[in-house]
Amino acid sequence: MEIKEYLSDKKRLVEDKLDSLMLAAEGPFSGHIEAMRYSLFAGGKRVRPILCLASAEAVTNDPALRDEALIIGCALECIHTYSLIHDDLPAMDDDQLRRGKPTNHMLHGEAGAILAGDGLLTFAFELLARPATAISTTTQVKIIRLVAEAAGPLGMVGGQALDIAGENSSYPFEHLQTIHRSKTGALIRCAVQTGALAGGANSEQMQQLTSYGEAIGLAFQIVDDLLDATSTTEVLGKSAGSDQIRGKATYPAFFGIEKTRNLARNAVEQATQALAGFDAPAAPLVQLAEYIYARTY
Amino acid sequence: MEIKEYLSDKKRLVEDKLDSLMLAAEGPFSGHIEAMRYSLFAGGKRVRPILCLASAEAVTNDPALRDEALIIGCALECIHTYSLIHDDLPAMDDDQLRRGKPTNHMLHGEAGAILAGDGLLTFAFELLARPATAISTTTQVKIIRLVAEAAGPLGMVGGQALDIAGENSSYPFEHLQTIHRSKTGALIRCAVQTGALAGGANSEQMQQLTSYGEAIGLAFQIVDDLLDATSTTEVLGKSAGSDQIRGKATYPAFFGIEKTRNLARNAVEQATQALAGFDAPAAPLVQLAEYIYARTY
Repeated sequence: MEIKEYLSDKKRLVEDKLDSLMLAAEGPFSGHIEAMRYSLFAGGKRVRPILCLASAEAVTNDPALRDEALIIGCALECIHTYSLIHDDLPAMDDDQLRRGKPTNHMLHGEAGAILAGDGLLTFAFELLARPATAISTTTQVKIIRLVAEAAGPLGMVGGQALDIAGENSSYPFEHLQTIHRSKTGALIRCAVQTGALAGGANSEQMQQLTSYGEAIGLAFQIVDDLLDATSTTEVLGKSAGSDQIRGKATYPAFFGIEKTRNLARNAVEQATQALAGFDAPAAPLVQLAEYIYARTY
Repeated sequence: MEIKEYLSDKKRLVEDKLDSLMLAAEGPFSGHIEAMRYSLFAGGKRVRPILCLASAEAVTNDPALRDEALIIGCALECIHTYSLIHDDLPAMDDDQLRRGKPTNHMLHGEAGAILAGDGLLTFAFELLARPATAISTTTQVKIIRLVAEAAGPLGMVGGQALDIAGENSSYPFEHLQTIHRSKTGALIRCAVQTGALAGGANSEQMQQLTSYGEAIGLAFQIVDDLLDATSTTEVLGKSAGSDQIRGKATYPAFFGIEKTRNLARNAVEQATQALAGFDAPAAPLVQLAEYIYARTY
């Protein structure tokens, strides 16, 4: 199957599942739920849930286990969405546009947007701790721990705090790596790891998929830096060139466009190599890595 | 033991445990961790962790199980603290003072405070999903689910959204009850329930403690409304009279001071009655209910 077809199929699957899992905007809390749903269904490539599902598919054919991975992926999408809502706030990046639509606080006010983010983050753990039948509670707890660590103070939130604190200041490349690894890399790696866990990966598969997850997380962030520097607001659906305006250190700022593109290529190759021996079931993971790189052209 | 002595003993226990569980403010993320620690250790009565522990103590003598309840209580305190940090933000209640000290955003900036709250919420789930030996993973998942529901869109966050949306508007008493039950009641009830679960409560005990938790959650909120209307900023350590200034519906606004005091008394008696048959091990829970009422004089 072509990767684009694969992605659009899975995207639909993710969005249908998200819709069925997410609370309906009715009853006394409907305003709050509406604010959460707004950002959750405002588009997005659904990279994390698709990675989670593809990772499970690489290790199991069991539809029940793949469905568990899909639910975990939806929880990760809730977390990713909350992070975007909070990143866009006036006190943070102060963005008015996200995926070509008004950001959450533009429609629901600052308080509403802060709470919508809080609600999505908390709801993600509600999903992860749902009564599950196909996976053991031991696996569930392990997955919850991985997600909390990836999204927490030494992961995504911590990375965002570092990113904000580092605006308009210069720091060594190692520090940029720490920011990338925590802010973006951790949750992407976690998507691959938790999908593998849900699918019942053995320890060797787990190790390989973790390496894949790390490499693809890095590739993703390098490409993101690259696109911010080279693309347009129209194409991105968010403000292009904003890194430079905010004085943010990025891969292109350190290495220039060409070298950065090579580094992205290297990361994608590392990701692909980590999957040696998986063969056909991991084909979508390989194509996903290539797809991320293809965005740079 | 006198309740005041019990409370100060347990408070120390909670704070020592919190300190040992919480990340140290070192390494690249130290600024972010420092912001979390600031509010976590800025005082507070530690009502939720103490209730969680006292609830476990009502059903078990096992120190290992009581320790699990203490850790869960610490996770709940992280969640409670995050909610205060976000509530105090300029976009929400815009408070400069909390427990007699500058609020988080006054010291760490708005972005820093939003992220500190996000970090504490996420870290709470890291604590709840830690490798535990004394309780089963099945119990752990059940506890995580209860906490996520209590703190989530139909619980605490949803209640805060309702509260903010309802400022300066009039609504029926039933709506005030919904706000109270979700914004404050849910997490307090959850503290009692999760402590009971960690302690290995049987289903009858669980039912009784749930009733206790609901009643004490209600008592707590009624008393909070009462204190805001009758106390001083100096005594409260936060702005007194702020409910009236913000045009918030409260128990005193609906019923006047005396009737409100009676309603608090009723709730405390309901809480106490729910514990019939527990005898001595539940004595601290009874005294805690009385203590909450005693704050109204």
